[in-house]
Amino acid sequence: MQSFRSLVQQFEQRVSAPDLFPVHPQNLYDPCRYLLSLGGKRIRPVVCLMAHELFAPIKEEAWNAALAIELFHNFTLIHDDIMDKAPLRRGFPTIHAKYGLTAGILGGDAMSIYAYQALSRVTTNFREVLDVFNTTAIQVCDGQQMDMDFESRNDVSSEEYIEMISLKTSVLLAASLKIGALVAGADTQAAEALYAFGKHLGIAFQLQDDYLDAFGTSKIGKQVGGDILANKKTYLHIQAVDHAASTQLASIEAWQDRHDAPEQKVTAMLDIFRDTQADEKCREAVAYYSGKAFEKLSEVSIPEDKKANLHSLAKDLLYREQ
Amino acid sequence: MQSFRSLVQQFEQRVSAPDLFPVHPQNLYDPCRYLLSLGGKRIRPVVCLMAHELFAPIKEEAWNAALAIELFHNFTLIHDDIMDKAPLRRGFPTIHAKYGLTAGILGGDAMSIYAYQALSRVTTNFREVLDVFNTTAIQVCDGQQMDMDFESRNDVSSEEYIEMISLKTSVLLAASLKIGALVAGADTQAAEALYAFGKHLGIAFQLQDDYLDAFGTSKIGKQVGGDILANKKTYLHIQAVDHAASTQLASIEAWQDRHDAPEQKVTAMLDIFRDTQADEKCREAVAYYSGKAFEKLSEVSIPEDKKANLHSLAKDLLYREQ
Repeated sequence: MQSFRSLVQQFEQRVSAPDLFPVHPQNLYDPCRYLLSLGGKRIRPVVCLMAHELFAPIKEEAWNAALAIELFHNFTLIHDDIMDKAPLRRGFPTIHAKYGLTAGILGGDAMSIYAYQALSRVTTNFREVLDVFNTTAIQVCDGQQMDMDFESRNDVSSEEYIEMISLKTSVLLAASLKIGALVAGADTQAAEALYAFGKHLGIAFQLQDDYLDAFGTSKIGKQVGGDILANKKTYLHIQAVDHAASTQLASIEAWQDRHDAPEQKVTAMLDIFRDTQADEKCREAVAYYSGKAFEKLSEVSIPEDKKANLHSLAKDLLYREQ
Repeated sequence: MQSFRSLVQQFEQRVSAPDLFPVHPQNLYDPCRYLLSLGGKRIRPVVCLMAHELFAPIKEEAWNAALAIELFHNFTLIHDDIMDKAPLRRGFPTIHAKYGLTAGILGGDAMSIYAYQALSRVTTNFREVLDVFNTTAIQVCDGQQMDMDFESRNDVSSEEYIEMISLKTSVLLAASLKIGALVAGADTQAAEALYAFGKHLGIAFQLQDDYLDAFGTSKIGKQVGGDILANKKTYLHIQAVDHAASTQLASIEAWQDRHDAPEQKVTAMLDIFRDTQADEKCREAVAYYSGKAFEKLSEVSIPEDKKANLHSLAKDLLYREQ
């Protein structure tokens, strides 16, 4: 079994290959190359490869499936950044900020089609792989729309929030694992168990992300309390509103509209998160979904020692400090 | 053989089926339904079906291929309209104008994935069909980028212009025919001949469009001379610049910057088009590509009477007055 680090390095070479896109039209493909050169954790393509390696040595078509997943993921990032009006991605200007709106829209479009083209080089279980990919791609769009809709709503429930993060982020992680397994010729039961592992892991990861944004130690390039300042309806926020007394609710509403005292706003909201036990609820939810994830991983009917890499990657993702 | 009109009507029912998209998230799928309800000529899906019928009765998978093509086409329209800042499409507000930028970007994205999902219901020659679809989709993006690039260039050659319209519009018409034939189980030679027919027909059609925009009788809802007023570098414009004497060139350049006298601008530019024989060059090019198209259609090795529908559709497209 190859390590996460080694797979990332090998994948990085493929995703930065100069012939991944044509040279012309340059105004279309330079932005695509630029975004992919900014790196990223490459978690999705690498878990695809790791899932594949549970059942068979990594072959060319597995690399293509992994590439398809990473291209698709980057396509969604490009378009999400436009919708979110985000100036930065991975610490560098986003495509639309650097090259303009046209480059962002068309570059994303082209990247999504190149994702399908890479996927088309898969042969083993191709129809199933394509079905998973299509279904997942639609779910990611649905999740993004829900996320946008939530911005203007004040009545989002925890269940709706979990559904949104599940669609927007978890299903692609889940599909990466499932596709890796299918391309290796794994049976349906194993592929499904890996999918469920990834889906629960993704939800736990996102909830942990919400928690760390508020209570984590400071990260390089990411502000602690950033979600609070952006008035994001995170799991913490939703839980706080759900369990707030009327005075706390009034306080939350008052802070929503204030942008003049960022430090005080973060401190006040963190206090409310603690007082309403939203922090504890969030930690419990992380534990619940993590537990589910590891349960599903144990159901994959292959020797436990083969799963060590995936197991430790999941732990790294969940038990990080920042 | 079914008539164009009858196929349009049957296709219209499928493309307006209430369950084509899910109900939720409504802010994602309402805009998609809206755009498809505005109609359009449905030429691409219907020629796909007509090409199919040359070789076999139309079956369910052919309808799905046709649907995939129309969804893909509409996805490109949605995103092109954003890039072109177009307020209207088919006489009604564009998606981004009516529902906002997010709806335009995400609605287009979702529609492109639904296109792939519809295509995935094809079984006959599926790998070939998917390859044609992917290649074509990338070419359409390349063509759109070239079109955008041309806006800020003054040295576009006729050859580049033909390449751009070929990529941006003709290859999808060509692919529609080829995919229809492949899904019917046609042999490669026939499918390729139909592709070449569609490609030349598409180029002839676009050049004819350029010509009619300047010299056609007035169209409902479309201004004669609209391309001139928008300073579009059409085939007429490029030919005029190529063959202009220095005084004519100076006149063209002077008119480019003037927006105060639209009627005089159109009249002056039409005179220049005539004086430089750009009009004749354009008609010659239409005749050349039309001739090529019909030549290719005659190469499709099936009885000529079976091709009557496609033949007459091509004539209708080329010999229209407006």
